[in-house]
Amino acid sequence: MKKSRVVIVGAGFGGLAVVRALSKADVEIVVIDRRNHHLFQPLLYQVASAVLSPAEIAIPIRSLLTGLPHVTVMMGEVDSVDTAGQSVRAKIGESFENIDYDYLVLATGARHAYFGNDHWEALAPGLKTIDDATAIRNRILMAFEQAEMADDPDEVRRLLTIAVVGGGPTGVEMAGTIAELAHAALSKEFRHINPEQTRVILVEGGQRVLASFPEELSIAAAQSLRKLGVEVHQGARVTDCNKIGIVIGDKQIPAGTIIWAAGVQASPAASWLGVAADRAGRVKVEADFHVAGHENVFVIGDTASQTDARGKVVPGVAQGAIQGGAHVGKQILARIAGQPAPAPFRYRNMGNMATIGRHAAVADFGWFRIKGGLAWWLWGAVHIFFLIGFRNRIAVMLHWLWSFLTFKRGVCLITGGETALKSDGFESRDIQPALPLGVLQTDSK
Amino acid sequence: MKKSRVVIVGAGFGGLAVVRALSKADVEIVVIDRRNHHLFQPLLYQVASAVLSPAEIAIPIRSLLTGLPHVTVMMGEVDSVDTAGQSVRAKIGESFENIDYDYLVLATGARHAYFGNDHWEALAPGLKTIDDATAIRNRILMAFEQAEMADDPDEVRRLLTIAVVGGGPTGVEMAGTIAELAHAALSKEFRHINPEQTRVILVEGGQRVLASFPEELSIAAAQSLRKLGVEVHQGARVTDCNKIGIVIGDKQIPAGTIIWAAGVQASPAASWLGVAADRAGRVKVEADFHVAGHENVFVIGDTASQTDARGKVVPGVAQGAIQGGAHVGKQILARIAGQPAPAPFRYRNMGNMATIGRHAAVADFGWFRIKGGLAWWLWGAVHIFFLIGFRNRIAVMLHWLWSFLTFKRGVCLITGGETALKSDGFESRDIQPALPLGVLQTDSK
Repeated sequence: MKKSRVVIVGAGFGGLAVVRALSKADVEIVVIDRRNHHLFQPLLYQVASAVLSPAEIAIPIRSLLTGLPHVTVMMGEVDSVDTAGQSVRAKIGESFENIDYDYLVLATGARHAYFGNDHWEALAPGLKTIDDATAIRNRILMAFEQAEMADDPDEVRRLLTIAVVGGGPTGVEMAGTIAELAHAALSKEFRHINPEQTRVILVEGGQRVLASFPEELSIAAAQSLRKLGVEVHQGARVTDCNKIGIVIGDKQIPAGTIIWAAGVQASPAASWLGVAADRAGRVKVEADFHVAGHENVFVIGDTASQTDARGKVVPGVAQGAIQGGAHVGKQILARIAGQPAPAPFRYRNMGNMATIGRHAAVADFGWFRIKGGLAWWLWGAVHIFFLIGFRNRIAVMLHWLWSFLTFKRGVCLITGGETALKSDGFESRDIQPALPLGVLQTDSK
Repeated sequence: MKKSRVVIVGAGFGGLAVVRALSKADVEIVVIDRRNHHLFQPLLYQVASAVLSPAEIAIPIRSLLTGLPHVTVMMGEVDSVDTAGQSVRAKIGESFENIDYDYLVLATGARHAYFGNDHWEALAPGLKTIDDATAIRNRILMAFEQAEMADDPDEVRRLLTIAVVGGGPTGVEMAGTIAELAHAALSKEFRHINPEQTRVILVEGGQRVLASFPEELSIAAAQSLRKLGVEVHQGARVTDCNKIGIVIGDKQIPAGTIIWAAGVQASPAASWLGVAADRAGRVKVEADFHVAGHENVFVIGDTASQTDARGKVVPGVAQGAIQGGAHVGKQILARIAGQPAPAPFRYRNMGNMATIGRHAAVADFGWFRIKGGLAWWLWGAVHIFFLIGFRNRIAVMLHWLWSFLTFKRGVCLITGGETALKSDGFESRDIQPALPLGVLQTDSK
């Protein structure tokens, strides 16, 4: 009998969880990804802030799956799905290939979104890929370089202002680490400017940062940020990004660097399938992650909008993708074996964490909450533990230790062109029209 | 009395040697570089071959010079020198600045050159910058990805052929490390192709590889390369690079990836100064490195053509730049103090080394020569020792240890766009017309 073929698009947390669940199954698996590497996104902001090198949080998909001979990896970009003919069309190199499937899992994640203001992207890059991170690193470091050479004091002040838009975990972590970069790591490296005077602004449209955490931890996070010298604006809406900086309400704030962490837009899986998407571009899936009308097509992670068996909404975080992937894997196993479906999916919240600089973090495990220095150590331990690859764990630990002891950053390199910023987004036609800021709570942390 | 100002253009080995010589002098120093980092070029091929991350061999110039308050670093691109007015014009950010000098040192290095065939650059990138290295890494890894997906066996064979043009140290080291990448590190990662069948071709126009070494060591290097599976073609002239591959003599050899290591062209310092350049674009300097007619302008390193006090030609290698920089520093010190000039410059050859894969190297110290495994350990020790920064030494040692034990490569990432390749060269107008291959022996190792 011919083996079933499972095609998984996207090798993020969700896609890899499906592979793991099927690692001993007698199936043929094809993993398709636009990039050659899996990315540990929770630490991506540390690449953008010059703490870690890209290779420490990205690992080639092929290396990860070398030991599984029933898995084939293809680097390519999916552009449509023929659900009737059960095949995926992908651009592989210069040509298009059709890859047949018996089961299809779409786990293609999300991209930052500008809510109808796509022209802001060039001014205010977001943080989803390695190229995004190195482009942001370039911008931050170049702003200091330009400030060092600028004559006009107003222009120096503008260049030394960095605005982070969006107060979810990514925004909070970026703002904290940039404040430390400017106020400690770079403090003695310039002759004409004083990087300690750098103004870091965090703008959150909602009433508090870290809105998905208990209020007590939001308050602690805002306090920790202020202690690091970050100006925290809550309930403040960014109405424009322009060449001068950002506009909050109707007040122009000059800023040389703008970083976008305000919202995400799902990848265009809905349009591949020809099904409706919600406002964030996500495919509405059934409780077991299959797409209504397509029993053998599943969507998981940030691309899916799902409510679990108890009516709980699965959040757009790594855990949601991992648990969804594992559940889909179990279902495929059961169907192939002709066994009954596994127990209905229930999302288990394993806790949320965010770090603020070198000494503080907040963690919420439902039954207990923790903040401050101890939370920071916990945050570090958890992230090291979940990082894939022994080599990366050692490398990241050494980098953190070195940064901790010396206050320095190891990766302050300006490389490549800004072009990397643009080549990697979804096509703009896939981004949906105007949504007010702060509507989306999904944040892949 | 106003302090003398020394302007140093280029923070490579030569420029930093001048700073070191003047580190305690009562002068004002301005260092101008197009990039924000000093690069340890002898290990650049290991970034191109996915062993090391960029940050491990590149270190921000500002961090290096933080402890010297009399040194100002400017990131900018020089485009002319006004020797009468004693000022350098540089593009800093978007504007042009004139920087006055009392003493000027040009240490702007060299770039790979195509001897009148500049259109080859897009097909056959060279290796001089971090962006060059990551672009080459992308090409090599993408060729394997494309081969995995290709149907036509001829096309698979073409994609699995990598040609390295030029048999100097860079070419030899690249060919060796690529052979190991293909034959060991990637061997189990693909399902449709066998990377062990990768054909690595090294083409040298002269009669032997490593022409600057004693013949015995050239023979040993060619043998070690062949043992690694590299096809070594000596006395073979590349007459064309095209979309299919390279042409040797009149024979087309299909190759999916071409790497250019065949020759260098000095940076355009000669045109900035309005003086004559030799065929390789270098400024002919006097025995003490000053430019005839300009007592306070010095050119050192790969940008200079110099014959020392004993009539010896200073080679275009790191040692030449370092010794030249130290000598120029001493002269500036003496002139400022009103003391007699230091003893005439004599180049001291401290030895040449090249490594071939994981187990072999050749080293020539004049009075003794060594090859094989022991030379490899010596090569590793010397390179770790001269690498700048404690953190980088530890990181590189760990990466090497890891690669040595596991046969894996840690940095197999495909990131960014190919555009990085083009944005970083000298403008083509500065490259001089047709030179036959193999004329230049300078190779920055």
